[in-house]
Amino acid sequence: MTATPPPGISVDRILRALADPSRKAIVERLSRGPTSVSSLATPLDITLTAVAQHLQVLEECGLVRTEKVGRVRTCSLEIGGFLPLEQWIRDRRSLWEIRLDQLGDFFTEDDSFTEDDR
Amino acid sequence: MTATPPPGISVDRILRALADPSRKAIVERLSRGPTSVSSLATPLDITLTAVAQHLQVLEECGLVRTEKVGRVRTCSLEIGGFLPLEQWIRDRRSLWEIRLDQLGDFFTEDDSFTEDDR
Repeated sequence: MTATPPPGISVDRILRALADPSRKAIVERLSRGPTSVSSLATPLDITLTAVAQHLQVLEECGLVRTEKVGRVRTCSLEIGGFLPLEQWIRDRRSLWEIRLDQLGDFFTEDDSFTEDDR
Repeated sequence: MTATPPPGISVDRILRALADPSRKAIVERLSRGPTSVSSLATPLDITLTAVAQHLQVLEECGLVRTEKVGRVRTCSLEIGGFLPLEQWIRDRRSLWEIRLDQLGDFFTEDDSFTEDDR
């Protein structure tokens, strides 16, 4: 059920999008379910125009989808849009753990050298 | 081996820290192993002062640790510093999935209503 993000969406764009407190708050609200543009504006205390601009940024980086039915534009979270960021964090963790393993091997080898040396 | 991030580190600060391309590049470099401040500056083509400022931001949000031994300051990644951001993404996913389950239940109930109604 998780949609894949549009190809070519960079982690940089996702991070820049989420670094804005209003856009982060929009994502937090939408994770509780789809809603209209106007009901996003009220609790954030920002204009409809500002919400529309934030939504455009979030849509462009694959985190939000909006759909106009009649006169109402409904916004939903695209949970798959987090995948590039999640993958980036996983990659940092993997590289860090590989490095830690290499350090472990280095100390084990060093230990056996000391053993032989006695 | 994963250190817990300093208490009170907000996801907002982590996102703002990583939204800067130079700071993201520093984190990417450090995930391959610890290094000195000067060797971080060279590939990024920025001054030592700029690197030091970026490192301070990354240290304050728990993503990087620096240690001065003699005249050399060594920087390491604090992999545990990603935990608040990872947890925030997991929370978005959980809430989104709960909402999806509720929608599923709604349609199942609606189906059984139609069955009874025949």
